[in-house]
Amino acid sequence: MAKNEQFVSQIADIETEFPQWYTDVVLKTKLVDYGPVKGTMVIRPYGYAIWENIQREMDSRFKAAGVENAYFPLLIPMSFMTKEAEHVEGFAPEVAVVTHAGGAKLEEPLAVRPTSETIIGHMMGKWVESWRDLPLRVNQWCNVMRWEKTTRPFLRTSEFLWQEGHSVYATSEEAERETLSMLQLYEDFAKTVLCMPVLTGRKTEKEKFAGAVATYGMEAMMHDGKSLQSGTTHYMGQNFAEAFDIQFTDKDGTLKHGYTMSYGVSTRLIGAIIMTHGDQRGLVLPPPVAPVQAVIVPIAQKKEGVLEACRALEERLRAAGIRVKVDDSDNSPGWKFNEWEMKGVPVRIELGPRDIESGKMTVFRRDTCEKGDGYLLSDAEELIHGLLGSISDNLYLKAQKRMQERIVPADDLDALLAGVNGGCFVRAGWCGCRECEDRVKEYAQATARVMAKENTSEKCVVCGKPSVHTVFFARAY
Amino acid sequence: MAKNEQFVSQIADIETEFPQWYTDVVLKTKLVDYGPVKGTMVIRPYGYAIWENIQREMDSRFKAAGVENAYFPLLIPMSFMTKEAEHVEGFAPEVAVVTHAGGAKLEEPLAVRPTSETIIGHMMGKWVESWRDLPLRVNQWCNVMRWEKTTRPFLRTSEFLWQEGHSVYATSEEAERETLSMLQLYEDFAKTVLCMPVLTGRKTEKEKFAGAVATYGMEAMMHDGKSLQSGTTHYMGQNFAEAFDIQFTDKDGTLKHGYTMSYGVSTRLIGAIIMTHGDQRGLVLPPPVAPVQAVIVPIAQKKEGVLEACRALEERLRAAGIRVKVDDSDNSPGWKFNEWEMKGVPVRIELGPRDIESGKMTVFRRDTCEKGDGYLLSDAEELIHGLLGSISDNLYLKAQKRMQERIVPADDLDALLAGVNGGCFVRAGWCGCRECEDRVKEYAQATARVMAKENTSEKCVVCGKPSVHTVFFARAY
Repeated sequence: MAKNEQFVSQIADIETEFPQWYTDVVLKTKLVDYGPVKGTMVIRPYGYAIWENIQREMDSRFKAAGVENAYFPLLIPMSFMTKEAEHVEGFAPEVAVVTHAGGAKLEEPLAVRPTSETIIGHMMGKWVESWRDLPLRVNQWCNVMRWEKTTRPFLRTSEFLWQEGHSVYATSEEAERETLSMLQLYEDFAKTVLCMPVLTGRKTEKEKFAGAVATYGMEAMMHDGKSLQSGTTHYMGQNFAEAFDIQFTDKDGTLKHGYTMSYGVSTRLIGAIIMTHGDQRGLVLPPPVAPVQAVIVPIAQKKEGVLEACRALEERLRAAGIRVKVDDSDNSPGWKFNEWEMKGVPVRIELGPRDIESGKMTVFRRDTCEKGDGYLLSDAEELIHGLLGSISDNLYLKAQKRMQERIVPADDLDALLAGVNGGCFVRAGWCGCRECEDRVKEYAQATARVMAKENTSEKCVVCGKPSVHTVFFARAY
Repeated sequence: MAKNEQFVSQIADIETEFPQWYTDVVLKTKLVDYGPVKGTMVIRPYGYAIWENIQREMDSRFKAAGVENAYFPLLIPMSFMTKEAEHVEGFAPEVAVVTHAGGAKLEEPLAVRPTSETIIGHMMGKWVESWRDLPLRVNQWCNVMRWEKTTRPFLRTSEFLWQEGHSVYATSEEAERETLSMLQLYEDFAKTVLCMPVLTGRKTEKEKFAGAVATYGMEAMMHDGKSLQSGTTHYMGQNFAEAFDIQFTDKDGTLKHGYTMSYGVSTRLIGAIIMTHGDQRGLVLPPPVAPVQAVIVPIAQKKEGVLEACRALEERLRAAGIRVKVDDSDNSPGWKFNEWEMKGVPVRIELGPRDIESGKMTVFRRDTCEKGDGYLLSDAEELIHGLLGSISDNLYLKAQKRMQERIVPADDLDALLAGVNGGCFVRAGWCGCRECEDRVKEYAQATARVMAKENTSEKCVVCGKPSVHTVFFARAY
């Protein structure tokens, strides 16, 4: 199949040139394009449709959890950013600043939000008066901006799309509980919607959100063994409540500060999907987020009855809730096979005169690249639904097996280095001090991704002192 | 009912203090709040839920029309803005400018998008090569920023949310056809989803979009007789295609510029709903966009079985696809009645021990403020569905009747002035010259909202020369 080879040759080798493979895939499948300003991206329809599916699935989970959506302004007075000392230190270097508007210089420069704790904290300070107003739980889907030096589509861009949820509670226990329950929601989402296994846990002080008391993250293993931070939740204690006067009169009549928390996932999840499931032919999209779940390719489409049969099948599958498309373009079937494989469509159905005559269809599944014929057309709805489910299961199990095989222990720095060089996550003990954490970074270019729930290690991988936390170290995006 | 009076007294008189009535309603119902930066708004959950309903309904219409969503960067190089001469003249005075980012001064200042014709034109110039790439039709849901001197929540704010659709076609006919078909889509949306009658038509040269060949708008009559521009579509000819090199090789092998068009509606539609349907008690929300379509208020809710019956009814209505809520707060029924009336919930169901015993319920409809008892609980799904439909119909017909009664003809400037002073739209002839249009503005503080499809007037309302266009003049938001 010469055309297939031609297609494949357009994508760099996934094993030896993974960064170029990624770039080839995101551009050639038209997920994304570079914007005119350095570090910006245009999310093209095929990429945005994945984001819409992510949004819909995630948003319904938020609503079921009782969170309401809202929208807060893009521009934040610079003075707000400085009200929480750690916060400004963390974000000021990355902020884009509006200094002029309406033809005049502004009295106070305005930050384009890098995240909205400050402005939402300010509004919560206005809204919260009594214990009856708590908890207050809002989320927004919006754009944010962080001026980054090195950028890559979906993974790190100066502007990206995300959701940021913010809650204020009367007690620390409640706020901490939601910090963990939202992490759980993210992990469940990653598993069931993105078919992506993740490690979750608390971040070290060095890696936590600027202004948080504690940050929790979920980390996924990419094809090259590097880790991608795919979602975070933050417990803020009273840091922001104090900075923004979020105070309430409690049942006992006393005035108290609330406890806040926040959580977010972004268009980075699209990068996570690509680098978790993709292969040499291109994208492999998880069925729950694939813009097209099944593509129907007519064989000998000019023959009488072929296109009609394809459309009839399309109608039936669409009525069964499957996102389906007939490719009736002028391209050859071989060309179409390659294109839709590159675009990661989970299921391809081939339908030609002989299939129609015998009431059967040929089905290709993208995850295993297996093709089978003789599937009964009359059972198409049930068959395709079942196949999509089994593709989801298989994608998850394959990625999970891979991750489990690639989590290795290390007793010393050289073993840690060998582990990350070998494309693994390294599980190791840590004494808890910043110097040792910095040393790992320096020696192995790896960072503490998350801490395990329990310390099961004996000694620190760097200094050999007793271990306080078992940590998953990895190179990271 | 003392509490009712107390509630009502909190809202300014709708007839004599309409601007204050509007402010009272949007703030007290928690649709919106003022942001910390002058001219910005926070869309609170109750307001944002309306926007989500608008988005969902509108987006499904776009998708059915074959339009795909995408996302383009927020920041636009200032040099892009100047590539289309009229465009920069129109928008430069309102632009917010990012001059610093990542701790350094930028080489080129960046505009926060006031609209995205330029950056989307730039990308289309990259993407379009052949007639096979056409038409290219994208839409984005996003925030935009226009630095305005006088602002009001939803109606005119420095930042607002909207959708902007952009298409490029091979021929002027196709681009012009979509300019009209999208206007038709908007009009149908206004009618069926917002229960809001509109006037549609072409804008005058003075009122058209900066850079367009022709702009079409839909205008709705607010409670005070002023007009609110509620949606616009623009035919750009080759203006932006030439500025951004959107060129394609046609079937005959020659290189040609495409023809572009764009269209948009914004969170302004929420203001339109409020000022079309609202009354002295507050909001009156059209059922298709109401966050809560039916509220169930328990009577004697501490009596055994009452709350259970309310929840059982809630479950049934929710299963029937109705957005329903039980208000089980500690407030008195009277307080709840007033609050939900102010919040514009279309239907209120009152359910107490006697109702439950007799298998009946009391139903209040917000549009007419009529209350009836004796509705069979067993028929609740059908009854409430039917009632929501009839409320939608009634809201539309009432607004339509009002608008028709308030469109008056004028033969001269004094009649035009009397018309707009009386809270009417004025239908009058116009010679087509800019001087006469300016004179209307000066004399009557009214502008040409849209031109009628046909010129049915004899003479210009200003100069008396033969009429070229019949125009609807009004004061406008």
